[in-house]
Amino acid sequence: MVTERSDGVVAALRASLPEQRLITAPDSVARYAHDEAEWAPYGQPAAVVRVSSTDEVVTVVRAAAEAGVAVVPRGAGSGLSGGANALDGCVMISFESMNSILEVNTAEQLAVVQPGVINDEFRSACLEHGAWYPPDPASSPWSTLGGNVATNAGGVCCVKYGVTRDYVLGMEAVLGSGEVVRLGRRTAKGVTGYDLCGLFVGSEGTLGVITEITVKLRPGTRAPERTVVGAFDSLVDAGAAVSEVTASGVVPSALELLDGQTLRAVDEWKNMGLSSEAEVLLLGRSDAPGAAGEQEVETLLSCFDKGGARWSTHSTDQHEADALFAARRLAYPALERLGPLLTEDVCVPRAAVPEMLSRIERAARRHDTRIGNIAHAGDGNLHPLIITPAGDDAARQRAQRAFHDIVDDAIALGGTVTGEHGVGLLKRKGLHAELSPTVVGMHEAVKNALDPAGIFNPGKVFGAPHD
Amino acid sequence: MVTERSDGVVAALRASLPEQRLITAPDSVARYAHDEAEWAPYGQPAAVVRVSSTDEVVTVVRAAAEAGVAVVPRGAGSGLSGGANALDGCVMISFESMNSILEVNTAEQLAVVQPGVINDEFRSACLEHGAWYPPDPASSPWSTLGGNVATNAGGVCCVKYGVTRDYVLGMEAVLGSGEVVRLGRRTAKGVTGYDLCGLFVGSEGTLGVITEITVKLRPGTRAPERTVVGAFDSLVDAGAAVSEVTASGVVPSALELLDGQTLRAVDEWKNMGLSSEAEVLLLGRSDAPGAAGEQEVETLLSCFDKGGARWSTHSTDQHEADALFAARRLAYPALERLGPLLTEDVCVPRAAVPEMLSRIERAARRHDTRIGNIAHAGDGNLHPLIITPAGDDAARQRAQRAFHDIVDDAIALGGTVTGEHGVGLLKRKGLHAELSPTVVGMHEAVKNALDPAGIFNPGKVFGAPHD
Repeated sequence: MVTERSDGVVAALRASLPEQRLITAPDSVARYAHDEAEWAPYGQPAAVVRVSSTDEVVTVVRAAAEAGVAVVPRGAGSGLSGGANALDGCVMISFESMNSILEVNTAEQLAVVQPGVINDEFRSACLEHGAWYPPDPASSPWSTLGGNVATNAGGVCCVKYGVTRDYVLGMEAVLGSGEVVRLGRRTAKGVTGYDLCGLFVGSEGTLGVITEITVKLRPGTRAPERTVVGAFDSLVDAGAAVSEVTASGVVPSALELLDGQTLRAVDEWKNMGLSSEAEVLLLGRSDAPGAAGEQEVETLLSCFDKGGARWSTHSTDQHEADALFAARRLAYPALERLGPLLTEDVCVPRAAVPEMLSRIERAARRHDTRIGNIAHAGDGNLHPLIITPAGDDAARQRAQRAFHDIVDDAIALGGTVTGEHGVGLLKRKGLHAELSPTVVGMHEAVKNALDPAGIFNPGKVFGAPHD
Repeated sequence: MVTERSDGVVAALRASLPEQRLITAPDSVARYAHDEAEWAPYGQPAAVVRVSSTDEVVTVVRAAAEAGVAVVPRGAGSGLSGGANALDGCVMISFESMNSILEVNTAEQLAVVQPGVINDEFRSACLEHGAWYPPDPASSPWSTLGGNVATNAGGVCCVKYGVTRDYVLGMEAVLGSGEVVRLGRRTAKGVTGYDLCGLFVGSEGTLGVITEITVKLRPGTRAPERTVVGAFDSLVDAGAAVSEVTASGVVPSALELLDGQTLRAVDEWKNMGLSSEAEVLLLGRSDAPGAAGEQEVETLLSCFDKGGARWSTHSTDQHEADALFAARRLAYPALERLGPLLTEDVCVPRAAVPEMLSRIERAARRHDTRIGNIAHAGDGNLHPLIITPAGDDAARQRAQRAFHDIVDDAIALGGTVTGEHGVGLLKRKGLHAELSPTVVGMHEAVKNALDPAGIFNPGKVFGAPHD
C-alpha cells in the first residue's frame, strides 16, 4: 500500500516539477533519511524534493495529500531527536536550495528569510547591517533557520536573550489543504487572534510546512563580552555555583559547564590542556557595558568561589577567552569521536542543577556507562552525552537504561525531558511521562484540527513511543 | 430556550456551591456584565460566580457544559474591547476572590499566582522579594494577571522588556470537559510538545478558564531610569523622532507620546501646565546603567532634535520626571471626562508611525471628530481615543466611521488592528479584515478542537461581527 501510494506521488511530482528538484535514486535519497540522532529509527523516503519556492512546496503538499503520503520537512539534518527522520515511502522536502535572506530591516528591527538559511550565515548578514539575531544553537554553523524554528532551538546566549520562539514574529506556511497562510505579524506588538505563529514554532513539522520566517532583531551595538572561568573539583560544586549566580540577580550572557570527560575528549583531539586544570569548568560571560560589566564579573567570580571553585579568574586575554568558548563548541564532536552518542537534553529548575548533576553521575555508575556533561548551566538545561563504543550492543542497552533514568529524574525534579532539541522520536516516551493524558489529547485535537489528513510528519512528537 | 437552560444551571450551581459564591440578583449581576469598552454590546448574565478555588471553577464549567450555557471569565473588567462582556443567560466567573500570590521564587526567577491578583499589587510583592515583573499596562492599578494573560496585555516598558506572553511560563486551566490541565513549565526552557500555554495567552477566554499562572521574573536590581522629554509642533514631527530612535539602535525603556488634545485634557483636570509647552510631547526613558545610560540619553535627545523638536531636555528632577509619567497614566481618565471614548489600539511598523499619525489627523477632520492621541510610540502601538459628547448620536456615528477608517489605514500600512487590548467584540470586523479566511478557519478549527461544546466566551474574537 505504502509503495503504491508512493509510486503515485512520485509520478505526480515528476510530472509537475523541474527534473533537478526531484531526487528518487535510493542511495541519493538515503543521504536525507535521518538527522544526527543516534539510534533513532528511520525509513526510506520515496522521494526528496529540493524545493526552490513556496509554489513548489504547495505542489508537493497537494500531491502528497492526494496520495495520502506523509510529508517530512528537513533543514540541515542537524537535529538530535530524529524529528526530521524519514518514514517509509514519505516525501521529504529539503530546504537546502530555498536559502535566501529576503530582507534585513534595521528601521523595523526585523528580517525575513527562507527556511534554508544557515543560522551563522544569517547572523553574519545581520551584523553587517548593524543588527543582531541572538539564538545561537551549537549547530549554528550548519543548522537552518527553518529547523531552528521547527524545534524552537536554544543556544548559549539564551540564558539572557531567550530562545528562537522569542524572536519569531511571523511566518508563511503551507497547510495540508495546499493553502498558503501568513501567521503572525511585522509589527512590534499584536494580539489579533490566537498565536498560531507561536503554535507552529516548535511543532517539529507536524502542523504544516514553514516556507518563510520573519524574525525580530536586536541592535548590533553590543558591548564586548567579558569572560570568567571557574574550575571545580566536582559537578555538584559547579552546580552550587550556578545556583549562586541565579540567586545573585546577575543574568550572564552565557553560563556553560564542561565536565572532565568532555575536557579530556577535547584535549585528546585538540590538545588544549584543559583537563589538567579542573574536573569541571564553568564558563561565564557578561555583556553589560562599562562599570556594570566589571561589577557583573566580580559577582560571577564571587558566586564561583561560594560554590567551592578550586580557582576562578577573569580571562582578560580575548584569544584565550575565545578558545574556551571554542572548546565548548568542540565538545560535542570531541565526544562523538569516542563512539556513538546518546544525547540528553533535560532541563530542570535552576536550584535543582546540583541534584540533577549528581543523579546523572549515579545513573552513569549504576549502568556502567560513560557520560560526558555539557550544559547551558544558567538555564538548567543539561546535555549529558552517553558514550558507547561502536558495535557494543550490551553497552548500548546500558546506555538506553541510563537515558531513561535521567529522563525520569528530570521529571521527578520538576524538569522537562527536552529543553531545546525537541521531542522528535527519541523523547516521545518522555513526553508521555511528562504530560498528562488530557494534555496529550489536546495535542491530538490540535493536530487533527490543523492537519486533518494527518500527512505532516505523522507519529513524531506525541505519537505512541515504541521503546 | 436560553432562559430555560440558564435556570437549570443556576439551580445546579445553587445546589453545589456555598451560597456566598453565587450572585443572581439582576442589579448585582449587572455590575459584572461589561468591561470598559464603550459601546460594545453586552447581555444579562444568569449568574455570576465569585470562585475561590479551581474546584469551584470545575463545578461551574461542568454545570454550564451540562446545560449548554456559555461561560465568560472576568478579571477586573478593565478591558477595552468587550472581551469580558456578558452574553444573555451566561454564567460569569469572577476571579476577584481568587487573588492569592502563591509563590515568589527568586532562586528560579518565577512566581505563581491566582488569576485575580491585581497587577500593581503583584509587582510590588515581587519588588519586596528583589524581583521584577515588567508588564505594566496603564490599567495596572486595577487589572488582574488573569485578564492580562487572557488579553496578552502590553504596557509602557514593553518596548524594551516585552509583553505579557513573554513572561508566562505555565498555567493551570479548566477545559470544557471539566478536566484540569497544566500547560507550560517551571523551567527556564522547554520544548516538550506544542506551546499550548502560549496558545491560551491572548485567547480571551475562548479556549478554557485559566485558574493559575506561572510567570517568569527578572532580577529587581534595575538601574534608576533617566527621563528625557521632547516637545514638538506636530504629530508628524514627533513620529519622525520615533523613527530616528528606532534607527539609532537605542532601545529605550519607555517611549510614550501625548498629543495636544490629551495634554489639554490633563491640564483641565490636574492643572499641570503641560499643554502650553508643546502640541505633542514625547517622553523617553533609559534604564541602562552608568555611562551607557548617559550615552542613551544623549542619543535620544539627538533623535528628538533630528525629528524637529521645539525643545528637548534630560529631566534630572526625579519629581518632575515622575509627574510626566503620571500625566501619561492620567491621560485616559482625563480624556474620558470629556465624554465616552472609543478606544483605538492599532499597531503599525515603526517607520510608518508618522504616516499613521497623519492619517489619524485626516480621519478626525474627515469625520468631524475629536481624537486625542496617546501612544506607546516606540512600539508603533497607537491609541487614538475618539471623544464624543455624551448622548450625541450623530457624533457617535461619525466616531464609528473614524474608528473603522483608522483600522483600515493601520492594515493598509502593514499594521495590526489590536496591539495589546485584544479583539473582544469591538475589533472583530478588523480581525476579519486583517486575517485571511483560511487563517480565520484555523481559529475555528482550533476552537472546535479544544472547546468542542463551544461554551467558552462564544462569539468573541473571531465570531462574525455585526457592525
